[in-house]
Amino acid sequence: MTSISSVQQYLTQHKIDAYIVTRNNMFLGQDVLEEENKIKELSGFTGSAGNMIIFRDKVFLLVDGRYDIQARQQTSGQNIEVVCTRDSIGSFIQHNIEEPCKFLYDSWCHSISEVDYWKRALPDHEFIEDKDNILGSRISSRQGEIFELEESFSGISSEEKISYLTKFCLDNKLDGYFLSECDCVSWLMNLRSDLIKYTPIIRAFALVSASGEVSLFINDFSKLEQELELWKGKKIGLSYNRTSKKLQSLMKSRRIWLSNLNNPVNEWKACKNPVEITGIKSAHLRDGVAMCKFLSWLSANWQGQDELSVAAKLEDFRKQGDNYYSLSFATIAGCGANGAIVHYQADAKSNRALTEGSLLLLDSGAQYFDGTTDITRTIALGEPSAECKSSYTQVLKAHIAVSSSLFPLNTPGLSLDAVSRAVLWRYGKDYAHGTGHGVGHFLSVHEGPQSLSLKSLAPLQKDMIVSIEPGFYKEGEYGIRIENLAMIVETSTEFMSPMLKFEALTLVPFDQALIDKSLLNAEEIQWLNNYHQKVWQEVSPLLDPESKNWLQKACAEI
Amino acid sequence: MTSISSVQQYLTQHKIDAYIVTRNNMFLGQDVLEEENKIKELSGFTGSAGNMIIFRDKVFLLVDGRYDIQARQQTSGQNIEVVCTRDSIGSFIQHNIEEPCKFLYDSWCHSISEVDYWKRALPDHEFIEDKDNILGSRISSRQGEIFELEESFSGISSEEKISYLTKFCLDNKLDGYFLSECDCVSWLMNLRSDLIKYTPIIRAFALVSASGEVSLFINDFSKLEQELELWKGKKIGLSYNRTSKKLQSLMKSRRIWLSNLNNPVNEWKACKNPVEITGIKSAHLRDGVAMCKFLSWLSANWQGQDELSVAAKLEDFRKQGDNYYSLSFATIAGCGANGAIVHYQADAKSNRALTEGSLLLLDSGAQYFDGTTDITRTIALGEPSAECKSSYTQVLKAHIAVSSSLFPLNTPGLSLDAVSRAVLWRYGKDYAHGTGHGVGHFLSVHEGPQSLSLKSLAPLQKDMIVSIEPGFYKEGEYGIRIENLAMIVETSTEFMSPMLKFEALTLVPFDQALIDKSLLNAEEIQWLNNYHQKVWQEVSPLLDPESKNWLQKACAEI
Repeated sequence: MTSISSVQQYLTQHKIDAYIVTRNNMFLGQDVLEEENKIKELSGFTGSAGNMIIFRDKVFLLVDGRYDIQARQQTSGQNIEVVCTRDSIGSFIQHNIEEPCKFLYDSWCHSISEVDYWKRALPDHEFIEDKDNILGSRISSRQGEIFELEESFSGISSEEKISYLTKFCLDNKLDGYFLSECDCVSWLMNLRSDLIKYTPIIRAFALVSASGEVSLFINDFSKLEQELELWKGKKIGLSYNRTSKKLQSLMKSRRIWLSNLNNPVNEWKACKNPVEITGIKSAHLRDGVAMCKFLSWLSANWQGQDELSVAAKLEDFRKQGDNYYSLSFATIAGCGANGAIVHYQADAKSNRALTEGSLLLLDSGAQYFDGTTDITRTIALGEPSAECKSSYTQVLKAHIAVSSSLFPLNTPGLSLDAVSRAVLWRYGKDYAHGTGHGVGHFLSVHEGPQSLSLKSLAPLQKDMIVSIEPGFYKEGEYGIRIENLAMIVETSTEFMSPMLKFEALTLVPFDQALIDKSLLNAEEIQWLNNYHQKVWQEVSPLLDPESKNWLQKACAEI
Repeated sequence: MTSISSVQQYLTQHKIDAYIVTRNNMFLGQDVLEEENKIKELSGFTGSAGNMIIFRDKVFLLVDGRYDIQARQQTSGQNIEVVCTRDSIGSFIQHNIEEPCKFLYDSWCHSISEVDYWKRALPDHEFIEDKDNILGSRISSRQGEIFELEESFSGISSEEKISYLTKFCLDNKLDGYFLSECDCVSWLMNLRSDLIKYTPIIRAFALVSASGEVSLFINDFSKLEQELELWKGKKIGLSYNRTSKKLQSLMKSRRIWLSNLNNPVNEWKACKNPVEITGIKSAHLRDGVAMCKFLSWLSANWQGQDELSVAAKLEDFRKQGDNYYSLSFATIAGCGANGAIVHYQADAKSNRALTEGSLLLLDSGAQYFDGTTDITRTIALGEPSAECKSSYTQVLKAHIAVSSSLFPLNTPGLSLDAVSRAVLWRYGKDYAHGTGHGVGHFLSVHEGPQSLSLKSLAPLQKDMIVSIEPGFYKEGEYGIRIENLAMIVETSTEFMSPMLKFEALTLVPFDQALIDKSLLNAEEIQWLNNYHQKVWQEVSPLLDPESKNWLQKACAEI
């Protein structure tokens, strides 16, 4: 079924109150192919996160703050109520649906934990597995081309990584571990694929035995069911948060013992190894060169350009770098009011010409074989207004507050999120997205477990990479975001040792035309000058004379 | 049984591996009477929080960072391993006890949630109810004198408060609500008692019916069992986090339907009503007068004094205030190295003379019929060292960072905790306690749900009171803590409205001899001068000439 009305007909026929639709496919992640995205198919909304609850006479589309404006625009004219919320599906139902209801859901697309939570916390409602599979298959038959990532890039052989997992099985008295997260499978096997645009993961489940045998399941899930037959009576570890309810029942029906254990690969993958670190720094240097050449070009040529043309131009500069593979996500180039749409995607219709006095928000990045980049710069086109300068400098203060922080080992990401947000709160400002996310190594540009966000308890550790990206968005006028990637490194102090701090990976200057120096204190000015000094030293030797000349001015001491 | 060895004998006889002992009584709170405190009886440790796990051949005493040093001192010579941890009993067992064990526990002293968690998360271990009650009764037979708090202090009649709860029962389709938190029962009934030193709560459970009838159970739990007989087949709401496993089984065995619902009284109680707010401000003014008179006296007379004598002198000043009832906790007066023991209690043995060049940490407060106070000041005796001045000023910066914060409605307390801690982290410093706690109205000096601590998700709301008390402790040398109480009030800004901010309730200057002005930025200096100006304006009219003279200097602009 591909329309809301046909789903509603089905509900009426079967006396069911509502259908819960997620954007997930069977891998539960954000990386869904066009043909798998049921939210888009049903509502037209293209954002990277969202859920729908289709009642017989009403439809809710739940989105987070990033997508509030976009979701309203893309669903306007339909009878869809867009709700901007941080609530999960379960919390939304708990807070908003009073009458006891029967909900249908696709058990391939919800985690064990999520469904168990619904059943435990919402006893007045009923949750029924959709055995008719009315939305059709949630997984594409396309596989893409799979290739190996050389050890000169990955740093550790697949055999060695698998040995970590067999040790984990032995330590936890398991016969095997079922790995349901694609980026973890990709990391474990040193395999990549071109299936998902921007994200070179392979899409597969892996079942790793305590003796080190690995079974990979790519699309062909009948093979998975056959394999599970051999595990009867054995004990498998898996993460209930990240494995679908359907897989649990496939295992349970074969009398396999299950143990809910967080996937340990996430942390191993998050803490980069020395070869990865060298590669990531090198990738950021190349990315910095591309960005600086682009910004130099832009400063002289922005008039007559538009959002789509500058995004294309920037891609051209990136393609010139060694080890370039692809962009790491669709470039966000938002001018003026479009910059206030947090995850804006320019298209032929929305595309704006760059105009004097406006701000250009440019969030972009690339996949290199040796590392993944993600950077946001906000650029003044012509002379910026005093308000834009104040707002930009306030966001910069928040960025510096995090970037210059010291913190104890294992500090939860939420603490750093508060450090950033508190700076903007003082000016009565905030942003409806996290302060930062983990970043993979030639993998997804968003990865866990670490996250600088309001409720993230995941401990920050040495050698993790995070983005630092506070912002401010004035709807209908302008958007500001300032994002660097940073590596977490150890340092020491007199009383506490070791402690952690951030080392900036991104090597691109901030637009000085937007900085109101009077709002910065001495420490902030010092941090900024040190950062620009570092950018100049590392990037300038690799530039042509014209870009070098631009960079010198851009990195001048304030 | 009153000794570790007799418990161990019992374990051996009954083939049980360990006994879990908490400091709780049947009300699960911190306010236990001397004769109820099994941790003290068994180990000698007197801190206000702690758990023991007694194995046949080993004894663990789990304490938090506040009590690490004290617990080692008080248990030294015994065969007790003190573990400083933030882990709950369950997490500690999970992380440290590998072999499957049989644990015995007293089901009167652990919440439903806690025991359910053990059973769910630790399937390798077994948890057995101690039906022999080997540690004896966990509740004293003493009741104290119960008295009514007049409506001129409480602001709202008990009848009206009960009507909130009957509405809650109707909204949640309950026949009644079982209130197991003593301070909530005290607030609901406008009753107080002198049973617990410093904390004028009554100790009672309350069962409130949807039609507004209230049954109070004070000590006599056979009456409770009789009453429950009448509730067969009915539905009672209660908080699984705050009600004992024993009470659950008493209800379940009578076929009462239970619904796990957070106790709503906590939030009603936390947001003070206008009469309470007026009273609290008035109480803080009187408390400020007492503190200022004391500090004026101390500045001229500290030589020859000791920790106990200054605590007694301060109590004398407080007793002179209107509506004075008692102290709100045992005064912490720690000089020099004693100041580094976070919850230090001076006794004849530990008592130190006040000496030139040392710091005096003074944490104290009072119960007035119209409000509860809690303040910490750190005072230089003679000329402080440069290190002490730096450390003090850094702690002051953390205090100001929180005190001057703006934040959105419902910000979780953990965000403000991070704001404070991040300031000290920059100097490689931290403190092993929360940044702040809620405070009751002529009730417990510690109350929830709000808390400024590392993991507190409880939303901050208008009219709540919290302490703001960062610190720094250098073991064996000195301790610094700077604590004000503050009320959360609404404010507005151009982009976000309403927002929240703190209004200081405490009216006592900070010791300028300890402030290194060069470490403060312009905004911090402004905040400090404004605060001292306010203290001067409000307190000075109520002082004798000598104290007034002292206060003028203490509040001088820096």
